[in-house]
Amino acid sequence: MSAQYCISFADVEKAHTNIRDSVYLTPVLTSSILNQIAGRSLFFKCELFQKTGSFKIRGALNAIRSLIPDTLEGKPKAVVTHSSGNHGQALTFAARLEGIPAYIVVPQTAPDCKKLAIQAYGASIVYSEPSDESREKVTQRIMQETEGILVHPNQEPAVIAGQGTIALEVLNQALKPNVKVYAAEPLNADDCYQSKLKGELTPNPHPPETIADGVKSSIGLNTWPIIRDLVDDVFTVTEDEIKYATQLVWERMKLLIEPTAGVGLAAVLSQHFQTVSPEVKNICIVLSGGNVDLTSLSWVKQAERPAPFQTISV
Amino acid sequence: MSAQYCISFADVEKAHTNIRDSVYLTPVLTSSILNQIAGRSLFFKCELFQKTGSFKIRGALNAIRSLIPDTLEGKPKAVVTHSSGNHGQALTFAARLEGIPAYIVVPQTAPDCKKLAIQAYGASIVYSEPSDESREKVTQRIMQETEGILVHPNQEPAVIAGQGTIALEVLNQALKPNVKVYAAEPLNADDCYQSKLKGELTPNPHPPETIADGVKSSIGLNTWPIIRDLVDDVFTVTEDEIKYATQLVWERMKLLIEPTAGVGLAAVLSQHFQTVSPEVKNICIVLSGGNVDLTSLSWVKQAERPAPFQTISV
Repeated sequence: MSAQYCISFADVEKAHTNIRDSVYLTPVLTSSILNQIAGRSLFFKCELFQKTGSFKIRGALNAIRSLIPDTLEGKPKAVVTHSSGNHGQALTFAARLEGIPAYIVVPQTAPDCKKLAIQAYGASIVYSEPSDESREKVTQRIMQETEGILVHPNQEPAVIAGQGTIALEVLNQALKPNVKVYAAEPLNADDCYQSKLKGELTPNPHPPETIADGVKSSIGLNTWPIIRDLVDDVFTVTEDEIKYATQLVWERMKLLIEPTAGVGLAAVLSQHFQTVSPEVKNICIVLSGGNVDLTSLSWVKQAERPAPFQTISV
Repeated sequence: MSAQYCISFADVEKAHTNIRDSVYLTPVLTSSILNQIAGRSLFFKCELFQKTGSFKIRGALNAIRSLIPDTLEGKPKAVVTHSSGNHGQALTFAARLEGIPAYIVVPQTAPDCKKLAIQAYGASIVYSEPSDESREKVTQRIMQETEGILVHPNQEPAVIAGQGTIALEVLNQALKPNVKVYAAEPLNADDCYQSKLKGELTPNPHPPETIADGVKSSIGLNTWPIIRDLVDDVFTVTEDEIKYATQLVWERMKLLIEPTAGVGLAAVLSQHFQTVSPEVKNICIVLSGGNVDLTSLSWVKQAERPAPFQTISV
């Protein structure tokens, strides 16, 4: 496999050894009401309970631990990335565990809640203009200035291997190794679906508009061959389906997932999924994260934070 | 104890035997960030994961199972109550398990979401005017018409014993039996605090205004002696403290509790709680329920429920 793809199964196993002392073995939960609605047995891998609130810590920590040589001299002086979402928080947390400063390149236009979350984990924020060109330029400059290494959010092989450790745990916790792999994505950000349809990497033509902000970026050169060959099918879902599925998990499971984490359940509940054989009975859905922007909830806006707890160290 | 109080410890143990085949042994979760904020070790008893979304199923089921005689002839034809909140849902669910119809008296002015939730569990809703007098009158009439028995939300001894089973589980899961018991309530609904202060049952003088809608009703004749003698202290919290604590549990633990369930953490984080000895190090907080009204969240309002899933049977 390693000849064709940027990582092998052995890399995932190695990643698990690298990180398992510092990440949670998150629980797999079930819900009888959701089984009833879906007409299948669902197993929810609860990565919203993961450190930093999403699975991204797995890839970030594996990257840092496997990219850093054993000698102290070779240790990078910093890590740099350009994700203002969960990867940014996760990389900062992971870098801190290893005593390395993190620099996160964020567009000036990013919402304050994201900037605050990254700062709360202790990163230095560096602003770029809201264009790919500016982001790239600023990232290059910071790498030079800090002598830091780039940890790409989704194309760095060590990150990909780290995220794959979810599957190792699920196979152990809930399923047999002989499983199908389905991808789920918003209809408004369906680069994965389009790529599979055309048989070639087809990025989103323009920045997608979707409430599932964690899957706005397109798949890349390293992930495309894996998806092309190893993902059995791709299901796309509408914004209303995502909101409905997210709300079901909130209401019925009392788990505060972010909308991106509702995409998997939305796919399983979609009309299209009815075409999947009833023999596909047990389905594991990864609830990828819980970093939802609570300031968008009406009454929460009114809550003033009492002074003694305004600053929270991690 | 049974001479002084409406229930004894043995009644709680018996209740546990009565109900444990039909309720969840809910998990006790911890959060390192919340430990840090509180400066103590917190153990959260997750009753939001309980059947019907709150601990109320414990009392409702114990009431139904212990009030029903062993002979079929003596089986009541219906159960009746006047709680439009979690007890109403729980009683309906419990009655259904035993094959008994449930009638819930609800003020016409109650929010639609509560009416829908009760109906979803299969109860018959009976409307009253929004006054204590009308509620009482309608409840009496329904009891006569249906030959049903009343299961009072919080003064029925079998309900009190059932709710007490939480403590049995917590003692087994997290704590030593030798514990202090603190009560927490909104400053705006502080009948428990006022009663302790004056040494006599002092109900709220008028219907309280608080986001913690589960604790709007006053303590009663059966619960007052227990609180008077066995609760070590009462902590009152402001509406902002409740909202802040609720939001912390959402953000940091990713658990969708209802605001009433945030009252306990709010008390532990309050200034007043700083006066509690640092020797009180391990604290269990009951997250009492997760039935929050999601229609108050801004973007959720926009989510249209796809047609095939509009009707959900339980």
